[in-house]
Amino acid sequence: MDKADIKKLIKDIRSGKAGAEEAYAKLKRLPYHDIGCAKLDTHRAIRKGFPEVIYCEGKSIPHLKKIVRALSASHMHIMATRADKKAYAAIRSVIPSAEYHETARIVTIGKGQKGSSGVLVITAGTADIPVAEEASITAQFLGNRVERLYDVGVAGIHRLLSKTDSFGRSNVIIVVAGMEGALASVVGGLTDKPVIAVPTSVGYGASFKGLAALLSMLNSCSPGVAVVNIDNGFGAGCMASIINKAVA
Amino acid sequence: MDKADIKKLIKDIRSGKAGAEEAYAKLKRLPYHDIGCAKLDTHRAIRKGFPEVIYCEGKSIPHLKKIVRALSASHMHIMATRADKKAYAAIRSVIPSAEYHETARIVTIGKGQKGSSGVLVITAGTADIPVAEEASITAQFLGNRVERLYDVGVAGIHRLLSKTDSFGRSNVIIVVAGMEGALASVVGGLTDKPVIAVPTSVGYGASFKGLAALLSMLNSCSPGVAVVNIDNGFGAGCMASIINKAVA
Amino acid sequence: MDKADIKKLIKDIRSGKAGAEEAYAKLKRLPYHDIGCAKLDTHRAIRKGFPEVIYCEGKSIPHLKKIVRALSASHMHIMATRADKKAYAAIRSVIPSAEYHETARIVTIGKGQKGSSGVLVITAGTADIPVAEEASITAQFLGNRVERLYDVGVAGIHRLLSKTDSFGRSNVIIVVAGMEGALASVVGGLTDKPVIAVPTSVGYGASFKGLAALLSMLNSCSPGVAVVNIDNGFGAGCMASIINKAVA
Amino acid sequence: MDKADIKKLIKDIRSGKAGAEEAYAKLKRLPYHDIGCAKLDTHRAIRKGFPEVIYCEGKSIPHLKKIVRALSASHMHIMATRADKKAYAAIRSVIPSAEYHETARIVTIGKGQKGSSGVLVITAGTADIPVAEEASITAQFLGNRVERLYDVGVAGIHRLLSKTDSFGRSNVIIVVAGMEGALASVVGGLTDKPVIAVPTSVGYGASFKGLAALLSMLNSCSPGVAVVNIDNGFGAGCMASIINKAVA
Amino acid sequence: MDKADIKKLIKDIRSGKAGAEEAYAKLKRLPYHDIGCAKLDTHRAIRKGFPEVIYCEGKSIPHLKKIVRALSASHMHIMATRADKKAYAAIRSVIPSAEYHETARIVTIGKGQKGSSGVLVITAGTADIPVAEEASITAQFLGNRVERLYDVGVAGIHRLLSKTDSFGRSNVIIVVAGMEGALASVVGGLTDKPVIAVPTSVGYGASFKGLAALLSMLNSCSPGVAVVNIDNGFGAGCMASIINKAVA
Amino acid sequence: MDKADIKKLIKDIRSGKAGAEEAYAKLKRLPYHDIGCAKLDTHRAIRKGFPEVIYCEGKSIPHLKKIVRALSASHMHIMATRADKKAYAAIRSVIPSAEYHETARIVTIGKGQKGSSGVLVITAGTADIPVAEEASITAQFLGNRVERLYDVGVAGIHRLLSKTDSFGRSNVIIVVAGMEGALASVVGGLTDKPVIAVPTSVGYGASFKGLAALLSMLNSCSPGVAVVNIDNGFGAGCMASIINKAVA
Amino acid sequence: MDKADIKKLIKDIRSGKAGAEEAYAKLKRLPYHDIGCAKLDTHRAIRKGFPEVIYCEGKSIPHLKKIVRALSASHMHIMATRADKKAYAAIRSVIPSAEYHETARIVTIGKGQKGSSGVLVITAGTADIPVAEEASITAQFLGNRVERLYDVGVAGIHRLLSKTDSFGRSNVIIVVAGMEGALASVVGGLTDKPVIAVPTSVGYGASFKGLAALLSMLNSCSPGVAVVNIDNGFGAGCMASIINKAVA
Amino acid sequence: MDKADIKKLIKDIRSGKAGAEEAYAKLKRLPYHDIGCAKLDTHRAIRKGFPEVIYCEGKSIPHLKKIVRALSASHMHIMATRADKKAYAAIRSVIPSAEYHETARIVTIGKGQKGSSGVLVITAGTADIPVAEEASITAQFLGNRVERLYDVGVAGIHRLLSKTDSFGRSNVIIVVAGMEGALASVVGGLTDKPVIAVPTSVGYGASFKGLAALLSMLNSCSPGVAVVNIDNGFGAGCMASIINKAVA
Repeated sequence: MDKADIKKLIKDIRSGKAGAEEAYAKLKRLPYHDIGCAKLDTHRAIRKGFPEVIYCEGKSIPHLKKIVRALSASHMHIMATRADKKAYAAIRSVIPSAEYHETARIVTIGKGQKGSSGVLVITAGTADIPVAEEASITAQFLGNRVERLYDVGVAGIHRLLSKTDSFGRSNVIIVVAGMEGALASVVGGLTDKPVIAVPTSVGYGASFKGLAALLSMLNSCSPGVAVVNIDNGFGAGCMASIINKAVA
Repeated sequence: MDKADIKKLIKDIRSGKAGAEEAYAKLKRLPYHDIGCAKLDTHRAIRKGFPEVIYCEGKSIPHLKKIVRALSASHMHIMATRADKKAYAAIRSVIPSAEYHETARIVTIGKGQKGSSGVLVITAGTADIPVAEEASITAQFLGNRVERLYDVGVAGIHRLLSKTDSFGRSNVIIVVAGMEGALASVVGGLTDKPVIAVPTSVGYGASFKGLAALLSMLNSCSPGVAVVNIDNGFGAGCMASIINKAVA
Repeated sequence: MDKADIKKLIKDIRSGKAGAEEAYAKLKRLPYHDIGCAKLDTHRAIRKGFPEVIYCEGKSIPHLKKIVRALSASHMHIMATRADKKAYAAIRSVIPSAEYHETARIVTIGKGQKGSSGVLVITAGTADIPVAEEASITAQFLGNRVERLYDVGVAGIHRLLSKTDSFGRSNVIIVVAGMEGALASVVGGLTDKPVIAVPTSVGYGASFKGLAALLSMLNSCSPGVAVVNIDNGFGAGCMASIINKAVA
Repeated sequence: MDKADIKKLIKDIRSGKAGAEEAYAKLKRLPYHDIGCAKLDTHRAIRKGFPEVIYCEGKSIPHLKKIVRALSASHMHIMATRADKKAYAAIRSVIPSAEYHETARIVTIGKGQKGSSGVLVITAGTADIPVAEEASITAQFLGNRVERLYDVGVAGIHRLLSKTDSFGRSNVIIVVAGMEGALASVVGGLTDKPVIAVPTSVGYGASFKGLAALLSMLNSCSPGVAVVNIDNGFGAGCMASIINKAVA
Repeated sequence: MDKADIKKLIKDIRSGKAGAEEAYAKLKRLPYHDIGCAKLDTHRAIRKGFPEVIYCEGKSIPHLKKIVRALSASHMHIMATRADKKAYAAIRSVIPSAEYHETARIVTIGKGQKGSSGVLVITAGTADIPVAEEASITAQFLGNRVERLYDVGVAGIHRLLSKTDSFGRSNVIIVVAGMEGALASVVGGLTDKPVIAVPTSVGYGASFKGLAALLSMLNSCSPGVAVVNIDNGFGAGCMASIINKAVA
Repeated sequence: MDKADIKKLIKDIRSGKAGAEEAYAKLKRLPYHDIGCAKLDTHRAIRKGFPEVIYCEGKSIPHLKKIVRALSASHMHIMATRADKKAYAAIRSVIPSAEYHETARIVTIGKGQKGSSGVLVITAGTADIPVAEEASITAQFLGNRVERLYDVGVAGIHRLLSKTDSFGRSNVIIVVAGMEGALASVVGGLTDKPVIAVPTSVGYGASFKGLAALLSMLNSCSPGVAVVNIDNGFGAGCMASIINKAVA
Repeated sequence: MDKADIKKLIKDIRSGKAGAEEAYAKLKRLPYHDIGCAKLDTHRAIRKGFPEVIYCEGKSIPHLKKIVRALSASHMHIMATRADKKAYAAIRSVIPSAEYHETARIVTIGKGQKGSSGVLVITAGTADIPVAEEASITAQFLGNRVERLYDVGVAGIHRLLSKTDSFGRSNVIIVVAGMEGALASVVGGLTDKPVIAVPTSVGYGASFKGLAALLSMLNSCSPGVAVVNIDNGFGAGCMASIINKAVA
Repeated sequence: MDKADIKKLIKDIRSGKAGAEEAYAKLKRLPYHDIGCAKLDTHRAIRKGFPEVIYCEGKSIPHLKKIVRALSASHMHIMATRADKKAYAAIRSVIPSAEYHETARIVTIGKGQKGSSGVLVITAGTADIPVAEEASITAQFLGNRVERLYDVGVAGIHRLLSKTDSFGRSNVIIVVAGMEGALASVVGGLTDKPVIAVPTSVGYGASFKGLAALLSMLNSCSPGVAVVNIDNGFGAGCMASIINKAVA
């Protein structure tokens, strides 16, 4: 049952064509799959255009396996984020073809969707790369082609300025930066593409685990910048994918 | 001199076709207009696709008039935000055709660009409307058609559920909410369109002038939500416009 | 000596029927039991309607054993919270019949009181289950029947909407949620039952260990929501029990 | 159309007895009344058991009048909170019988429901009285009898100890306190009734506008205490009413 | 050279009786002893009335030994705080007679001064005992007799009320409490003795590592309460000693 | 009825000499005087050694007059703090002999108790003087002689060093400082007298209304420093009085 | 008596050449001038190289006049900061030649010292100009020549890049910026001159009155940046002057 | 290619002497060296006057080796900060002559530049020494002679006052202090040299990991104090070096 089917059903209910019994029966089956420890939102793929995503942190290994097994029964494409090596081993024991992206801490099952070009991921420093990779792998798995431009922070702004032509090739730009997070404002001032800013917890002392970069990005003097949670590469990858696929 | 001209010049410099002297002369004149109290970024319209915007708060009346006069010499379309009635009077004394959007506290000069459809602005309560109007008027002035869906907060979620068909008609959704800001997550869970969340300072006590809504939106459990500053309707309108115009 | 006895004594003192000597002797013995490292509030069971509860975190094993031994001399029903496996082993070495609820990290001694129906415990995600179990086991031990509805967060709100009939069967609802904590407001908007909201430290970045959910719940736009401390499943279970037993 | 009617309709839809067309027509009319500046949740009275409540702060006088006029067409009992004298004058110009409770800043229309006994409202100091009155008037209007015990803070704890018999007469206790908010813990330790704690912004310096009392109450060492937002007398009154009416 | 000698020297300098050379020579030698890694303030004992105190946390074992060796050359009474077992072993290897107070994490050398009665140390719970012991041992070592009253928090206020006669026997009262820290206000309201309040980091969630108790104590509605840093038992012990010795 | 009477009564109750009826009758009358808007703690003077104190801020003029009238019936010495000129006028209309201390914003009735010497009040700057005067007048009214040493902050530390002989004449020192509050640590390092530190809200930017000074004083590296709330001159004056009178 | 005199005296005391009596007499007169409400640090000019500075905020008009009168008896050059028009009028009534710098809110008496070139003051926006002017006027009055470069924030970074030659002409650079404060990092990355960063309270919402810019600047990824308090133009001007005069 | 070459090139481009092609070719090669995981800013040494610096924390051992190898190809002087023993071993395996400064956690390659005198580094306590050593070694490596004055905090201010002659020998002073950070203000009040204040995370409880010292230093009442990030010894060393070398 795909998006078009759902849309048709909704229309039929509105028009009265679908009787209450029939609609109820269909809708009841759709939304989620209750496996005890979780209610898998199998409907999300249809509603949001995403394959199913598992957040590994804090899940026990038995629960993780159970969820992967349940999902793989009905899904071709599964992504698991914040996965350490143990989580990967557990998933691979269920689905041997699962692939591990170590820097991004992501496990993917299935090839991901065919990519439309247009997402550019920029980092201020090398320490921001894990979060950037989480965003990049997420966007790739959701069917986007990703260009990476890492370690171009404002302490040596000529590195960024020499690469601004990559801005033109993108539909949406993700800026990943810790410390003072100034890169988001600078990029925002140089492009007319939407900028998704990701503060990272990189820094020490008065960075207060990413708070400095977060506040900095929220207060960006450049219009066209919106912000996701600290270290939330996954969220940035999703948002960028939604925008890029609408544009492309 | 428009975007194409600029692009050509940049190409010519890269290829060596434009001599240093010639390029220097042209570029020197382009970027900004120095009027003493401000360096008007006349280049921004080209770089960002926005007409010039004046932030009125904290500017003296003489400065405001000077800036409006300088901008109106070279721009057809000017927008002034956070404008109280005094600021409006000052602007109108320079440009009699200036129009005042009182709830949004915005003054516009010129008709705005021809609108492409696709921006939906939602509020949780009636107290969020001024911020929502700042977003709506901004988006309209930047050439977008805006649909408004106000006062549909989660305390009475049926109001929102009865209107989800408007989600389908939009390319991008702005959610404006104060207090606990839960509306952003709920909308984000119901749509596959990008959601720009605007926390407002509406609330009291432990809302801490919008902090509660801000943190809530940054931690949204729904993917596809990005956040702008508290009460920053203007920023949300810009971001939405950038996305909508790329899509439409 | 039970509640009625105490009430009578208080009345007698007020009326002058109980002489000072007699009252003094009785009251002196009642209130607590001093075992050196602690003054066990043996009176609390009478005053609050709760069996004695031991908070294990930070207590040494010898102290823990000493307290359990002292309490078990005069109490049939004992509950120990925040108990890890070592704490459980220590308690079991004193009272072999002690039972361990691992997810909830609670040890119970005795069967708990006979349950009156009426407490519903809801979680937003699977990561909130340990806190929810602390609340559920606490409520059960205090003599309530508990219905569980886990993993129905607002990112897939249809999961919750399909289960609203469980609201009608309850006298009081506990909502356990981390991240943005929006579930409390949504549930509060859908029911006329009192809602006890428990923010959890689930989340990362700008959740600031539960602060985002806490502020969100305190600012709930739905009336009929009150909040307990972050991760305080025990407190929510107590509060729900007090209300449920008054109603049932 | 009352609660029973709604319940029947829902049953009929579930059983298939109510056709889609018929149900749609009924439900569409029910939930809210769109008057432009607001979507009045006329359904809330049924869903939550509350008469309609208007939050006056930040609403313009014309909007306020419009809302009162619209509500009074279908409601006998209306309450308006955070109402200053201007708001009261505006409401009275529409409904001459409207009554003003100045300390509580509440306007009521209609007599309120017949009261069931059982709500006790306690304050630590005299400066907490306005918030306490907001809670008291709210609870009274929602059909509860309220006992007041004001100015019994812990700096002179004998004032409280001499009045503990009032605890026994109540089904639910609201404790209103600013500064260090210790009263909630003390009351919570002396009673087996549910305690709703309301931190107030009374205090100075490091009270940080109620933050000290809020944190204090959230960390209460007494079980059976739940907290609402700073200065949120209305919310406490609602919560207490929900509990009291279930018990009484 | 004792306090009287110093006072005389200062007088002599003021009166001109002590020549510049002589005074300089004496004063230069007095104030501190430079051992490379530290400048031991040997003068403090005279200036503040305290024996020398070593704060162990963060000091390397070789540095610690060096400091102890240097101090023991000129001091009979030495106290080392925040000492874990390793630190104790290091100190004992230099001074075999050193004594370890494990709960208080304090090492003492020498018998302490002869005690004047008058310090009462109260805790709210058993988890506050380590901080209370740091205060108690400190006060004892500085020559005060200490009475302990532990685990009398406000959740069972009768435990405290039954012991108020101990207030009368003291000259100064230290109240040690975590969570909401209400005990300080309650004690402050019951006594006319100076109260030194010590917030502890005991608690979880919104206690924010002692912040809740700290703010609570600073906002105490009872006059006669002053506060030291979170978990600063040592500081409270010093302050209490200064007051008690002045009084006794 | 004075302290001795109370003490005797308590003894008699303990020994059984005072019958329940008799004790009840006496104690019921003692503790407070209920005048509707307030429960005047007439007992406090006995329990704490203070005359009655009225906190004016937030009290209505009629309430203020009522309280003053009620208190003056049984008290010779009354102090009202945070009193602006209107409050003073109101009090004087009831008690014509009331005296106004404008800088301290205190009104006193009666001469205050005969003063024992020994309180020294120090400020860092001239802007701290109002808070210092609140402390000084409070201490004087409570029967202490006060020496003032104002504007001796650490930016010109020689001003302080030239005045250290005043330390020797005092029994207790109050240090009032805003901005970085460093003066408390410096004074604490130079004296063996107890130091009560009062952070003030003097400062701007990152002083965050006194937070910087508060944290600074709580973290004082000098032992013998305890802290009261921001701007709480009254609290410091009380604490100093309690200590000074015990010593003197 | 100037710096050289002081230095000689100190040397003489050290060498023993200056007798105690003589030194005492001289030093006692030097340090400050006690006028009751203030202890004027007349010594600061010598010790710090600054003329006397009066911080007007919070000083009463009579006190202000008294201080100006006292200072003008012994000083040629006086500066008063945070002076509104009333403060200026008061100062002018004492010293008719006083000059008012309105944007900077500074009053100067005397011509200031002869300027050495080398201070560059940069702002991000026009709203930062008042703080920048406070810094500029301060630096000028302290004897520095100041170059101003206003409104060159990173939203249009070409404005800054076109002006980098001014960096080479300076010895020290002051960067004044609100909102996200990114300009400090960008300037710090482009120059080898010391950068003094001044966060301003310009911004709204999550700028939290300058906190965002402050944290941003403290976390600057460019070395060679140090920070002063929010809106502290005076402090930046002093610091820049100290550095510039050492270099020039 | 050194600074002079760069300067000449820039001049030539400005004057038109350098053709676009030629300039482009040169500038393209200059700025940085892309080694995959990092874009080494080889230009920084020229632009900022610093040798290359590697921040080790969070870098993998293979990446660290790769960066050291790449840098050592073109640089004589390399510094690596926040290096633990593993990082040192990795660096030494590439460059056997690398030297380890353990307390400062810094690795240096090459002898550092010939030192100009003039940097004084002061600490409040012994626990601040690691941060101070990071500053000292940094400044030495950047070619400054450093004088150290450790453990002279304000709790024993005579230790500092006896050493003020060292102030005169310096061009710039670094003050490193945790807890309440008062030392920066005291030093700032005693010298006319620029003071760089470094708050450290030394302290506990309400020091909040350095926040107390940070706020204290930002609010210093002494002019001539600027602040760097918490524990940022490296940043202070850079800033001091920039100033000292300009002066010397």
